[in-house]
Amino acid sequence: MKILVLGGDGYLGWPTALHLSQAGHDVAVLDNFHRRQYDFELGVESLTPIDTLQGRVEAWREVSGHQLGMYIGDLTDADFTYHVIRDFGPDAVVHFAEQRAAPYSMIDRKHAVYTQVNNVVGNLNLMYAIAEIDPSIHLVKLGTMGEYGTPNIDIEEGWLEVEHKGRKDRMLYPKKPGSFYHLSKVHDSHNIEFACRIWGLAATDLNQGVVYGQQTAETMLDERLLTRLDYDAVFGTVLNRFVIQAVLGQPLTVYGNGSQTRGMIDIRDTVRCIQLACENPAERGEFRVFNQITEWMSVQQIAETVERCFPGEVTLEHLENPRVEQEDHYYKVTHTSLLELGLQPHLLSDTLISSLFDVVKQYAHRVRPEALRPTVTWRNPGLDKS
Amino acid sequence: MKILVLGGDGYLGWPTALHLSQAGHDVAVLDNFHRRQYDFELGVESLTPIDTLQGRVEAWREVSGHQLGMYIGDLTDADFTYHVIRDFGPDAVVHFAEQRAAPYSMIDRKHAVYTQVNNVVGNLNLMYAIAEIDPSIHLVKLGTMGEYGTPNIDIEEGWLEVEHKGRKDRMLYPKKPGSFYHLSKVHDSHNIEFACRIWGLAATDLNQGVVYGQQTAETMLDERLLTRLDYDAVFGTVLNRFVIQAVLGQPLTVYGNGSQTRGMIDIRDTVRCIQLACENPAERGEFRVFNQITEWMSVQQIAETVERCFPGEVTLEHLENPRVEQEDHYYKVTHTSLLELGLQPHLLSDTLISSLFDVVKQYAHRVRPEALRPTVTWRNPGLDKS
Repeated sequence: MKILVLGGDGYLGWPTALHLSQAGHDVAVLDNFHRRQYDFELGVESLTPIDTLQGRVEAWREVSGHQLGMYIGDLTDADFTYHVIRDFGPDAVVHFAEQRAAPYSMIDRKHAVYTQVNNVVGNLNLMYAIAEIDPSIHLVKLGTMGEYGTPNIDIEEGWLEVEHKGRKDRMLYPKKPGSFYHLSKVHDSHNIEFACRIWGLAATDLNQGVVYGQQTAETMLDERLLTRLDYDAVFGTVLNRFVIQAVLGQPLTVYGNGSQTRGMIDIRDTVRCIQLACENPAERGEFRVFNQITEWMSVQQIAETVERCFPGEVTLEHLENPRVEQEDHYYKVTHTSLLELGLQPHLLSDTLISSLFDVVKQYAHRVRPEALRPTVTWRNPGLDKS
Repeated sequence: MKILVLGGDGYLGWPTALHLSQAGHDVAVLDNFHRRQYDFELGVESLTPIDTLQGRVEAWREVSGHQLGMYIGDLTDADFTYHVIRDFGPDAVVHFAEQRAAPYSMIDRKHAVYTQVNNVVGNLNLMYAIAEIDPSIHLVKLGTMGEYGTPNIDIEEGWLEVEHKGRKDRMLYPKKPGSFYHLSKVHDSHNIEFACRIWGLAATDLNQGVVYGQQTAETMLDERLLTRLDYDAVFGTVLNRFVIQAVLGQPLTVYGNGSQTRGMIDIRDTVRCIQLACENPAERGEFRVFNQITEWMSVQQIAETVERCFPGEVTLEHLENPRVEQEDHYYKVTHTSLLELGLQPHLLSDTLISSLFDVVKQYAHRVRPEALRPTVTWRNPGLDKS
């Protein structure tokens, strides 16, 4: 298949592109390098040194013999988006190309507005480009488990059978997202469901859990193929951050009492899930939602798992939770669709964490420790108030 | 109370400002005149001749002795929005200032993007201004019944008690909106609910039905106080449009089989509902939703009502439905909250329609009849495809 990976220079977009290419698909990547730009703004960088996109693409050609297409530009530029869809002519578009950090969206008003405009407009342009140029293109869109919040009922895969006053309907699952970033994904989901209904687009919305890990079979082939690893409190995801804190001998910073629960997934399963979604497309007119997680744990349990695996002293430090979220809550998630398509999960294990310790140790000298402390708080509408 | 009416130059914003002023409140209006601009783009104008905002404000001072504050600018300009909230210091902000026509949002990609960015960013800026400057300001936000779509269960007021697999939760009512405009309002509602949760804002979301009528007690006091009346297929609401078609001797254009149902409300009840919402504010942290309708009818029934009332020959013409919507569907709406606050509805009556006939006859020479025919279609992603 011809598969276009939007955000193909990012933490997950890059390994996904390699995985799809290795599986024999004709792959192109698209990126505007906003993710690298956020690092300059925040004064941090990926723990792992990453090559330029051009260097990575060349390295992959040398290592694998496969050529990746490359498009450099911004989805909010509709002319560019239409050009790419026409020029590459994909069967499927995998859409990672959004601002993806909840804390970044909560810095202040400008970051909230940027996040929602960037994500919603990029996605609208993509939907229109598909609808106008080739509505048979399968849209594989990355969402997040954080769209659901923590309801007191089971989280189903995007839709809910509702019975009310003796009548029934199948409805979109009600969302209670936890940041302006998570809200942007809810907006996208509603827009895509509508496009499926009126234009007959085929879409898969992947509500992904927190991703952990750094290496996939493909990125391990050459150092130039490394994907980024974010450790800072804005872009670093929880397990990766805890591993880095353990290696540095810093306390693992648990927000609140730590009983808040996160759906999780190994990076190797992420790339496999995307492959499964592409190779088993949604029907025309179908808005299909998969919960892309393999297990869930409380933040406290994640910290204790890292503590148990680490060959040395580890302490936990409970910080006041910068987020506004429920800490003690029910959490049960249905996630059968990807298993039925053939996913064989890598559950969180000591082995995974140990391999992550090795990566982190190799690059620990690159860490700016102060960037591990949270500075963005949900209760205050802005850091820079006049 | 000090009440700021955003979109105070529009069809409903203007009569609402007068009504609140007449009720003794200290009122200011804000507008960017985008609504007048759409008329230039579409080559139409309000059936009723409307004065400039400056002329209207002066006329109201002469007629009533009350001074309205006036702010000219755009909510997507955050500096302006913050300035107005600081300068006027309202107790309540009534937010009508959004692009409000479903067909306008469906013209093509640019209009869809404009509608969502304009509405979502204006509302985000307003939420942040309230949160940073004075979080006790009550946000009274205009939504639409079109956010719900036509579910097969009763439509409740914004929230739904869900029972699922033996567990219960109170969740946001699942939405299935019918255009990119309606989607923008769903996005707003999610953003506001979140702001109530994290910042303790007090908000009332008014999901309004299709408004009909043109005169309120205040606009009738002087011709310079007239509000606009849109008859074109893009901005004209269904009953108003049918009345104009009847007066012109044109067939009433019913889309599809006409069995699709609309929640409705008289313009005199709209202004009263806003007053009731302002005078009985939401609690801090509360996201309160009212369904602002008084009755519902199918489009066919609306056409037949106009036909019955009109003193002359009327024909109905069924056009292919330009929208993608269910035509034969269940429709039952809970709308008790505003009644409990004291609303005494004006139900659709022959008297109302007759008074509307009189207004229309007076200005019928201003109509461009071709503007009554629908040109925007939901199934096609754009009118201007290259």
